[in-house]
Amino acid sequence: MTVFFEDVSEGDRSEYGSYEVTREEIIRFAEQYDPQWFHVDEERIERESPYGGLIASGWHTAAMTMRMLVEAEFRDAASVGAKGTDELRWWRPVRPGDTLRIETEIVETVPESPERGLVRVRVETYDGDDERVFSMIGNVMYLTRDG
Amino acid sequence: MTVFFEDVSEGDRSEYGSYEVTREEIIRFAEQYDPQWFHVDEERIERESPYGGLIASGWHTAAMTMRMLVEAEFRDAASVGAKGTDELRWWRPVRPGDTLRIETEIVETVPESPERGLVRVRVETYDGDDERVFSMIGNVMYLTRDG
Repeated sequence: MTVFFEDVSEGDRSEYGSYEVTREEIIRFAEQYDPQWFHVDEERIERESPYGGLIASGWHTAAMTMRMLVEAEFRDAASVGAKGTDELRWWRPVRPGDTLRIETEIVETVPESPERGLVRVRVETYDGDDERVFSMIGNVMYLTRDG
Repeated sequence: MTVFFEDVSEGDRSEYGSYEVTREEIIRFAEQYDPQWFHVDEERIERESPYGGLIASGWHTAAMTMRMLVEAEFRDAASVGAKGTDELRWWRPVRPGDTLRIETEIVETVPESPERGLVRVRVETYDGDDERVFSMIGNVMYLTRDG
């Protein structure tokens, strides 16, 4: 059943996902998109990283969060993309061996036209110790039933 | 020469980068991190995409922007990661064949301790027609000369 704009309400909450973070994927993502030494250079990390070990690129954490969102929330939604995000924060490093999950809450729904509406959704990502590692407010466009 | 917190000033501007966007990379990124149909399903895109063709995941655009930032601005910087970003916006779709570039401007520098400071940098990504496709304000931590 497709979820349209009219089906989404302020205060709706959900929990989803299980994403296992591997050393190989951390390095592969960072080598392509964020080759700062503290994401890719294991010898230098060993010697001098302030994080005490290999950590994922923040953009990788955002991408893994998106994967969980798509599999759960957007799979059956009449979502047609996002305008952007606000207050994106990387609270704690994500490390190899972490298993991530997400929690979402609809913070606002704004009709924009007869065909579309804006859904503002708070997304928080947690690690296996239930520590919050990432959060943002997404501004997502949904089609209405007439859209 | 390493760029420390003391070397960064409000109003500093730069232009960098040249990133060629390919169909293969758009689909590869989206299949792993953002498998919404309008990023991966070329038959359905042909039939019904509101975007008139394949477009990159917004997180892919963010990641390509980060790659250009790292190659230029962070390669020689005493940057130790970011707290987050504000006002992240996807202004226009990014398509196969686009060549992206970025412009940056330092909007604020905030000393946080004798060892570290926060640099707020506006980042804008443009396509080959000089249309802005992406923007954000990054909150990046830099070491001081004493850090």
